[in-house]
Amino acid sequence: MKYSFRNDYSEGACPEILEALIQTNLVQTSGYGTDEYCERAREAIRKEIGMPDAAVHMIPGGTQTNLILISSLLRPHEAVIGTTVSHINVHETGSVEATGHKVLTVETPDGILTPERIQPVLDAHGSNPHMVKPRMVYISNTTEIGTLYKKAELAALSKFCKEHNLILFLDGARLGCALTAKENDLTMADIAALTDCFYIGGTKNGALFGEALVLRPEYAEDFTYFVKQKGALFAKGRLLGIQFLTLFENGLFYRLAAHANEQAMRLKQAFVDCGVEFLTDSCTNQQFPILAESIAAKLEKEYAFEFQEDCGERGVCVRFVTSWATPAEAVEEFAKDLKRLIQEYRGA
Amino acid sequence: MKYSFRNDYSEGACPEILEALIQTNLVQTSGYGTDEYCERAREAIRKEIGMPDAAVHMIPGGTQTNLILISSLLRPHEAVIGTTVSHINVHETGSVEATGHKVLTVETPDGILTPERIQPVLDAHGSNPHMVKPRMVYISNTTEIGTLYKKAELAALSKFCKEHNLILFLDGARLGCALTAKENDLTMADIAALTDCFYIGGTKNGALFGEALVLRPEYAEDFTYFVKQKGALFAKGRLLGIQFLTLFENGLFYRLAAHANEQAMRLKQAFVDCGVEFLTDSCTNQQFPILAESIAAKLEKEYAFEFQEDCGERGVCVRFVTSWATPAEAVEEFAKDLKRLIQEYRGA
Amino acid sequence: MKYSFRNDYSEGACPEILEALIQTNLVQTSGYGTDEYCERAREAIRKEIGMPDAAVHMIPGGTQTNLILISSLLRPHEAVIGTTVSHINVHETGSVEATGHKVLTVETPDGILTPERIQPVLDAHGSNPHMVKPRMVYISNTTEIGTLYKKAELAALSKFCKEHNLILFLDGARLGCALTAKENDLTMADIAALTDCFYIGGTKNGALFGEALVLRPEYAEDFTYFVKQKGALFAKGRLLGIQFLTLFENGLFYRLAAHANEQAMRLKQAFVDCGVEFLTDSCTNQQFPILAESIAAKLEKEYAFEFQEDCGERGVCVRFVTSWATPAEAVEEFAKDLKRLIQEYRGA
Amino acid sequence: MKYSFRNDYSEGACPEILEALIQTNLVQTSGYGTDEYCERAREAIRKEIGMPDAAVHMIPGGTQTNLILISSLLRPHEAVIGTTVSHINVHETGSVEATGHKVLTVETPDGILTPERIQPVLDAHGSNPHMVKPRMVYISNTTEIGTLYKKAELAALSKFCKEHNLILFLDGARLGCALTAKENDLTMADIAALTDCFYIGGTKNGALFGEALVLRPEYAEDFTYFVKQKGALFAKGRLLGIQFLTLFENGLFYRLAAHANEQAMRLKQAFVDCGVEFLTDSCTNQQFPILAESIAAKLEKEYAFEFQEDCGERGVCVRFVTSWATPAEAVEEFAKDLKRLIQEYRGA
Repeated sequence: MKYSFRNDYSEGACPEILEALIQTNLVQTSGYGTDEYCERAREAIRKEIGMPDAAVHMIPGGTQTNLILISSLLRPHEAVIGTTVSHINVHETGSVEATGHKVLTVETPDGILTPERIQPVLDAHGSNPHMVKPRMVYISNTTEIGTLYKKAELAALSKFCKEHNLILFLDGARLGCALTAKENDLTMADIAALTDCFYIGGTKNGALFGEALVLRPEYAEDFTYFVKQKGALFAKGRLLGIQFLTLFENGLFYRLAAHANEQAMRLKQAFVDCGVEFLTDSCTNQQFPILAESIAAKLEKEYAFEFQEDCGERGVCVRFVTSWATPAEAVEEFAKDLKRLIQEYRGA
Repeated sequence: MKYSFRNDYSEGACPEILEALIQTNLVQTSGYGTDEYCERAREAIRKEIGMPDAAVHMIPGGTQTNLILISSLLRPHEAVIGTTVSHINVHETGSVEATGHKVLTVETPDGILTPERIQPVLDAHGSNPHMVKPRMVYISNTTEIGTLYKKAELAALSKFCKEHNLILFLDGARLGCALTAKENDLTMADIAALTDCFYIGGTKNGALFGEALVLRPEYAEDFTYFVKQKGALFAKGRLLGIQFLTLFENGLFYRLAAHANEQAMRLKQAFVDCGVEFLTDSCTNQQFPILAESIAAKLEKEYAFEFQEDCGERGVCVRFVTSWATPAEAVEEFAKDLKRLIQEYRGA
Repeated sequence: MKYSFRNDYSEGACPEILEALIQTNLVQTSGYGTDEYCERAREAIRKEIGMPDAAVHMIPGGTQTNLILISSLLRPHEAVIGTTVSHINVHETGSVEATGHKVLTVETPDGILTPERIQPVLDAHGSNPHMVKPRMVYISNTTEIGTLYKKAELAALSKFCKEHNLILFLDGARLGCALTAKENDLTMADIAALTDCFYIGGTKNGALFGEALVLRPEYAEDFTYFVKQKGALFAKGRLLGIQFLTLFENGLFYRLAAHANEQAMRLKQAFVDCGVEFLTDSCTNQQFPILAESIAAKLEKEYAFEFQEDCGERGVCVRFVTSWATPAEAVEEFAKDLKRLIQEYRGA
Repeated sequence: MKYSFRNDYSEGACPEILEALIQTNLVQTSGYGTDEYCERAREAIRKEIGMPDAAVHMIPGGTQTNLILISSLLRPHEAVIGTTVSHINVHETGSVEATGHKVLTVETPDGILTPERIQPVLDAHGSNPHMVKPRMVYISNTTEIGTLYKKAELAALSKFCKEHNLILFLDGARLGCALTAKENDLTMADIAALTDCFYIGGTKNGALFGEALVLRPEYAEDFTYFVKQKGALFAKGRLLGIQFLTLFENGLFYRLAAHANEQAMRLKQAFVDCGVEFLTDSCTNQQFPILAESIAAKLEKEYAFEFQEDCGERGVCVRFVTSWATPAEAVEEFAKDLKRLIQEYRGA
């Protein structure tokens, strides 16, 4: 295989993080996130978002982060609203339901939730105690299909949620790529100001693992209990602190994501140059080209990528993902191979 | 502070593991434990225990491992039996109950469960549908208070569990120290043969993190679903594979634990030499000396350790833990300091 | 108000049941369904369905019955498939999710599940451990919108479920009306033979309360524990036994339902005579006419019924329900009032 | 069998309730507790306790009431404190744990919780996020072993709970017998004033079924959702309203309980006259005499009662329960039979 575009967690960690782990390896610290590295990392994140009283909890993985956040903020009868393609709805093995809460879904063409799309869910539920009570809105930025929220969109959603007593939670598994995309006009401080809680994804942006969940203080009471109860309070919590401290020193977090986006844009151009269409118009590190089945099959012999969905006569939609680790050369070579295959296909 | 004996997860990872992570860092693999390192690690563990069809699931942390195992094997009305000091009963924030299951407890002087101690629980419950149904026995080796199971004890318990349709689960957070203790007469293969499922602790024995859960195949159906649903299916599962592969090549797992025990025995001797008594007679890496409060207070100025329990007139019981990383010199210096303090105390 | 067509539980119990409760009132029995009346009721139901080894559990209410059945038969990662209008999906306040399980839904025009409609759900999930595992199919007969399953439909669904390892559960809150509808070609024995478990609704068919859940023996192990754990093991279980015994002596169960259907057909004819259209073509005791808003508003002054959904230009769909207790005179008077109102409306 | 003293739910309902159900049988009402009978019953209870803004929810059974109350008021990491003999700890099939919460227990000689007995539980937990957080105190009045709370005891407990941010919940399955016991000095208004929530037991005091849960308004938000989600929102909620309305008109509730207590006192005297000892000194409708095994065996041929526990050389402790329905003649005859048997036994 020449290269895997399967996902953004195919390698270990970026060199800076690996180096930081090596340097601190024998320092003795207390456990469970009470050490100095964790405290400094939390401080760095609070500074980054300009919210000195924010609660920050670093958690090993994204599904964990979602289920802990959702189950600790909702009362038993309350439900969370997402899109039909929301990660929590489709790809977390019912982890939210396993904590007792229904996921209400909205069909969207682009994975984006808007007040207009949420209002019918509220209307359908009213305050009828025979139905669940919508109480949280879950969005992903970037979305599961590569799109992103513009500032005006997020501001409108934020206002709507406040007016309707809905907690707004943003899953930032790929927040780095969102914030460094060419079309983006949001800062991390905007994200913090416009949501009630969000997480900053490390796993998919150069860390060995780790997500940093940020909550307004009013939602954070007793939060360490929930992290522990769900098995996410790492004994060697320092590992999370050291990684996030490294990511938020000197802008590394953004540089890693910007690299992934840059390679994605070159990859996108390669498809565009060949006249390939896309499922969504993504300006971030996930690209969803629609290929003839035979082309996809031939590409699979030398490149790894994921099947997304069947598009009938248009072919199959597949997913290509770039990351902090994707070499420019790999994209270049892929572009050549793609061009050749498409030419052969059209010639045939 | 001169040294922390607070726990066995105060440092990063043993050098061999760190080196393995560095060496493999840029290799691309598939995610979620489907990579080759994970497969080889699972194979190494199966070989170690002589059970070719065992299911092995590597999970980041211990609380997670316990809650996943217990919640996936029990039906809703079934309960798990532990001791009153069981980690799942006291120190996991009700994580088992959070999955819906009651923990039934037995008082013991030494943290060890025996058929005689379990029988009254079974008698009290019978098959009365107004009460939970005892269905699993949870033991820890070493126990939470440093003691360990001898082969005859585990064999008797195993036989009892089979006869009473009880699943026997062994929490091996400190299994390395159990298997390398001087008094131990069990092998890891014995553990596998005598239990239905158990886990091999990495976090407390030199790994950055990770526990390897081993299940008889009849309990393993669909197990990856449960790991995912509880948020424990690591995206970069390779990290777990690489670590356990390293631990089980050339006996590293045992050498690390043996070192911890060796330092613990020297520490114990230091206490014994000073006439100090213990809560339990531990031959493993956790020692529970009972100290005069003033001695404990003075030691705390230069050494870190944990408070265990108040022993009234006898003083306070504290916990000292050694690890793969504890330098012989640290123990030596501590022994001197202890001796001096005790002499001053007695002189006073 | 002249009459309420709001639901089929607006009154107490049919006279035969009330009389049976009075006659047995001072007989002393053991509690929790272990009494002789319960045993005889279970026997009567087993005889009715021709399945001598069926397990029968009588439970006070329908939501309870659904949540107990579903949560006791599914393992944590398994999900139940219903329609978007399934009672468990919409009108039970997330009770199934509260027990940890996802409800997967299928859009249908008529509330009926077929193999063709279920297959895409299975295809989308495959055996991917990142997604829930579809394991049960939930159907209602009559459906939530008044339609019913024909024998061929249920047989095809049953075969499909067996082939795909899906448990088939039929919610029979209104099973009486299904089995006595003119278009019906199923017997209760057919229902038992073609499903894995189903319940016979008492609450909506003349009992004070009570649903009789029938399970194939292979699903019934330890079932009383689940009933108790969810708070559904009635202390005076005899009340359930006496009621179902009465319902299944001399065909009372069917006579009550046939009466409800008969009144519903007369009601339907009244709407048809006035040229009113319906949401669904229901041959059972729930009718869903679509009325001009002003007509509905005027009817509401003298009759009670429920709002179902907005049908835009066609008007509003409302729900009329008849029951064992609906007097023929009430329907007759309603028919006259309706005719008059519609004439006025058209004249206007 | 001459008579069953097995429990206080061996018969149907008291005649007044049966009559009220008959009289209202054909009145049409709305469902789910929104009818006028329910409203009047809630009003009668609010008046009885002198708390006009109390929330009252009538629920079919006691286990249901407990699990709904506890699971709706606790956040996921919070636990409830009871005694080792608490009904929720022993005889509800782990229903509280099934909703995710740990039950912390205290050993007591008499089933009574006091500040002194609770304090050590709080001390052991502190604010350690590795342990559950005690947040509710569950007491029963009468207790599971027939004893009762005096006003001073309840006041002290109430004060302690307020000071320690603990919700005080009183299970009143047998509240009628508590409040009409000779030794009682509490009123129902006292109970309401001194607890945060409590329930008034109907099932064990002459109703067909039903418990009326009373909550301070600050705990009652959205409570109907929880009742529905757990399957306890009765379709024919009117049945609960009619019953509680009857119980609280003209003091019927108290008269029924006073009768049960009176018969219990006569039963107790019969045992005392024979020199029989008791497990607890109960002044209410549950009596726990300790009998020689051969006596118990002979009594069992003509009377039904329950085995409580083995008392070694002292014999077996059994439970006798009287109720609103126990005829004075049954007690009288039993007293004679007991006296005869004991005389024979002593003569032997």
